[in-house]
Amino acid sequence: MASPEIDALTQALARLPGLGPRSARRAVLHLLQKRETALAPLLRALESVNERMVQCAICGNIDTIDPCGICADPRRDGRALCVVEDVADLWALEKSRLFPGRFHVLGGRLSALEGVRPEDLAIAPLVQRVAQGGIDEVVLAMNATLEGQTTAHYIAERLEAYPVRLTQLAHGVPIGGELDYLDEGTLAQALRARRPID
Amino acid sequence: MASPEIDALTQALARLPGLGPRSARRAVLHLLQKRETALAPLLRALESVNERMVQCAICGNIDTIDPCGICADPRRDGRALCVVEDVADLWALEKSRLFPGRFHVLGGRLSALEGVRPEDLAIAPLVQRVAQGGIDEVVLAMNATLEGQTTAHYIAERLEAYPVRLTQLAHGVPIGGELDYLDEGTLAQALRARRPID
Ligand SMILES: [Zn+2]
Ligand SMILES: [Zn+2]
Repeated sequence: MASPEIDALTQALARLPGLGPRSARRAVLHLLQKRETALAPLLRALESVNERMVQCAICGNIDTIDPCGICADPRRDGRALCVVEDVADLWALEKSRLFPGRFHVLGGRLSALEGVRPEDLAIAPLVQRVAQGGIDEVVLAMNATLEGQTTAHYIAERLEAYPVRLTQLAHGVPIGGELDYLDEGTLAQALRARRPID
Repeated sequence: MASPEIDALTQALARLPGLGPRSARRAVLHLLQKRETALAPLLRALESVNERMVQCAICGNIDTIDPCGICADPRRDGRALCVVEDVADLWALEKSRLFPGRFHVLGGRLSALEGVRPEDLAIAPLVQRVAQGGIDEVVLAMNATLEGQTTAHYIAERLEAYPVRLTQLAHGVPIGGELDYLDEGTLAQALRARRPID
């Protein structure tokens, strides 16, 4: 039924990764048929996320506080910094507390194809964090894709002048694989066997 | 990252048909990273649907008005009534204006397995609509599943006493198939070739 309200909701859902137009339509029907048990909780959860979640001004993580819980936690090892492409990767690493240090979220990867340039990513703030001192090791935990590795090499060059050890995840990460899809075991192994960047 | 807000949103999304826990997590990240272009439109669309969409007291359709646009439309043929399991099926039929009459949404199908009994469906209101007169034909457009057909036969018995022609969709509907997943051509053919219930 073409009601503009339904259409708008269907389109908004269809744009989510993992949902096409057809499954979005079924999702809308499900929401309409389960007003109290599906639509209301989703609406409340979205409102709450919209109102409460903010991006950390230091690392780019998303949390209810700024600085985020990781940046604010004095037990985290401030000398180790793990650079990731996006928040999904930070969460994948953080889920099992694999990394004792802090993070830096780039907000993407360099891509000639998609026109993503260094100034489109949080690379300058990263250089600034490193330049301020106190950091011994920077783990470049980019995805093992061509673009991820290009980004890692670009950042390695930008940080070359600073007295920090640059490392990358061990090749346990499958070629072409995205961190966010890895099981914890592989991720833990790749992190444990991390090695200096050549 | 375990923030209760994120968890609640992930869970609410994971309960949608077509989204599992992993894709719900990616959807949440997408929403967080595209606050203006993804989260805000979805939130507005959900709010609007929640505020404006109501169930039609006559037929069970969902629309911004009650009675719904179909029940209120004087150009619809009030003598033909198409009974469907749920709103999804009504929309599937209505999308291409296949049926000139009005509808009746049962809100499900009889199921011994799931404990769905006649009184759990809008069967009594259907009998009442038919008993009020003015209806010549009732199309029992249930899904071609065992439960759908059981429901159709049960309704046929309940309507037996009334002077209406009972028809069902032609077997162009694949066995085990759900109306909502059919292409319009098959659906149109099945409706055109509808035949009296034995
Ligand atoms: Zn932070
Ligand atoms: Zn109606």
